[in-house]
Amino acid sequence: MLPSDTQLISVDDHVIEHANVWTDRLPTRFVADGPRVITDDKGHDIWHFAGGKHVNIGLNAVAGRPKEEFDMEPTSFSDMIPGCYDPVQRVRDMDLDGIQAQMCFPSFPGFAGTKFAQAADKDLATACVIAYNDWMIDEWCGSAPDRLIPLVLVPFWDVPASVAEIERTAAKGAKAISFPESPSNLGFASFHSDEWDPLLAAAQATQMPLCMHFGTGGAPATSPGAPFAVAIALFGMNSQFTTTELLFSPMFRKFPDLKVAMSEGGIGWIPYVLERCDYTWDRHRHYQNLELKVPPSEIFRGHIYGCFISDAAGLENIDLIGEDSIMWECDYPHSDSNWPDARGMLEKSLVDVPDDTARKIAETNARELFHFTGGR
Amino acid sequence: MLPSDTQLISVDDHVIEHANVWTDRLPTRFVADGPRVITDDKGHDIWHFAGGKHVNIGLNAVAGRPKEEFDMEPTSFSDMIPGCYDPVQRVRDMDLDGIQAQMCFPSFPGFAGTKFAQAADKDLATACVIAYNDWMIDEWCGSAPDRLIPLVLVPFWDVPASVAEIERTAAKGAKAISFPESPSNLGFASFHSDEWDPLLAAAQATQMPLCMHFGTGGAPATSPGAPFAVAIALFGMNSQFTTTELLFSPMFRKFPDLKVAMSEGGIGWIPYVLERCDYTWDRHRHYQNLELKVPPSEIFRGHIYGCFISDAAGLENIDLIGEDSIMWECDYPHSDSNWPDARGMLEKSLVDVPDDTARKIAETNARELFHFTGGR
Repeated sequence: MLPSDTQLISVDDHVIEHANVWTDRLPTRFVADGPRVITDDKGHDIWHFAGGKHVNIGLNAVAGRPKEEFDMEPTSFSDMIPGCYDPVQRVRDMDLDGIQAQMCFPSFPGFAGTKFAQAADKDLATACVIAYNDWMIDEWCGSAPDRLIPLVLVPFWDVPASVAEIERTAAKGAKAISFPESPSNLGFASFHSDEWDPLLAAAQATQMPLCMHFGTGGAPATSPGAPFAVAIALFGMNSQFTTTELLFSPMFRKFPDLKVAMSEGGIGWIPYVLERCDYTWDRHRHYQNLELKVPPSEIFRGHIYGCFISDAAGLENIDLIGEDSIMWECDYPHSDSNWPDARGMLEKSLVDVPDDTARKIAETNARELFHFTGGR
Repeated sequence: MLPSDTQLISVDDHVIEHANVWTDRLPTRFVADGPRVITDDKGHDIWHFAGGKHVNIGLNAVAGRPKEEFDMEPTSFSDMIPGCYDPVQRVRDMDLDGIQAQMCFPSFPGFAGTKFAQAADKDLATACVIAYNDWMIDEWCGSAPDRLIPLVLVPFWDVPASVAEIERTAAKGAKAISFPESPSNLGFASFHSDEWDPLLAAAQATQMPLCMHFGTGGAPATSPGAPFAVAIALFGMNSQFTTTELLFSPMFRKFPDLKVAMSEGGIGWIPYVLERCDYTWDRHRHYQNLELKVPPSEIFRGHIYGCFISDAAGLENIDLIGEDSIMWECDYPHSDSNWPDARGMLEKSLVDVPDDTARKIAETNARELFHFTGGR
């Protein structure tokens, strides 16, 4: 059972950036080409950047609405509750649901800043990352440092600039890095290459885990005629894919203190994936000359964290996953969130779990991984 | 515990076609262009068909070898134990391991006959399917009808011809149909279309389940530099994909008595996938106007069967999957098989499972699904 004094730490929520995040902060030479909001003739607030238009889709800002009213339609700031974009209101919404702290991913930039990579001017793209990070650390989390945990972006299209940004943001309090779950899907090097090594070394040195949110490597490719529900149901397969890729990659041999969170990936698949990876390793490592000398499940524990919103199958198999490898997410203000009843639903789902384990999952695993002490 | 009098039925094994399967049976006008084996100067027996060369890769015929000797290298008939291609020897190998019956997928044609689709002459392609089916039913299974369960191919590139072949083979004893897990990946219609309806109606009418073997929709796309182990570990994701696609498709509403087996897909992921599909259905069905009126997990049970070789995570969660929805596989002569200790390993894995449930998984679910009474 979840002890009543547990301070819930949610490791995956989302900000909706307010309209002035970049216009307020970009160096003057970039302001004209930086992200800006223009309200169209239907009243939709649309982000304009790098020749493209980007809406805040409705599903990503439905906090507090009955699910019968969920919709994909573009939405404007006035359609959302203020907790979406205002950190003071956000903390009030967290108070309503008994949540101590949360870590937020971006919205318009993509959960790992992949939209910035679309800019032809990579100096502009990097400046956009820096502006976002300053806003996230100084304005968003700065308004309530005991309640909001800074997650930063990196200009992953430029490894030296990423190293510099990791060091800069770590020095001003950042706790984690959002990184694409499948960079090779985006046209960059895979996790099997050495190209990311300086970036990974900087993440390890600053003790900042990489949070790989599902969807940052693209949406699951479904077949013609499939309802969108199929893709939604399959998003967690991205996290299975990335987990398997990482376990057979050299990443954790090269950087043994590096940690990765599979944000919003769910946990119910972990027992199957670990067993399947071990079975594969046992049978196929000889002729493939795999450098991996221990079963992949041993690499998993201590390096990769599963994250869930609601996952009964996973919570029935904590022993197969590892109680130290699981963290909880609220996902405010998205459609998969249970806010403002997230704590109540989490308590119900942990009713048969030993108190110590429940507290690890809901609070202390996240505190340790992200070195976050706010509220204690 | 598995009762000692359980007659094991394995629902996924493989034949290696002998060199004369097609030359013996194709109509005279097709023999010259039909599949034929030519031994190359390295001693490898190579299938030639439709302008392409196709090897029996080593991993697919390693039965009885220590895993330290597994290899991808092409292999010749003389490298294999005779049970790979000789049904009399196959039954002896089954006797060595206490296996009553098995159902075999093809090798050279692809597990669902997809290589035949590469022939420009679709009449030739269809004739190849018919010849395979006659060989499978008459020669392979005909040699031991109580021990070998006929699984047939369909010329899926031609729906009316598929209907005819389903009816023809059902009349001569076929029990199941091998069908691609993701036809749209192969350039054909998806499961969300109506194009397969006559074929599905014929399968339903003849009470032949569709067996969708993992890999028949292509191998998982891994990232550059990934060892082949990653793809091997991820093959079961194909089955998760197809299960999710089918649950949200109209297939089982249109054909309520149709059944599908996810061959070699494993079972440990099923609790997660069913829960995730239900969660998606609960939250997203309103604005998407999904025609599905019950939770996807209700569609799963009674329509889709999970199949495993070795899957501890699945067997710890039989209650979440459904004891009527699980079948066992030996996978002889492939590298994932535990033959000649398959029965021993299955017994160990079922030691804590109630006897009635263990018997269902190891024997009676398969007997009922495939209407197979051999040995009883």
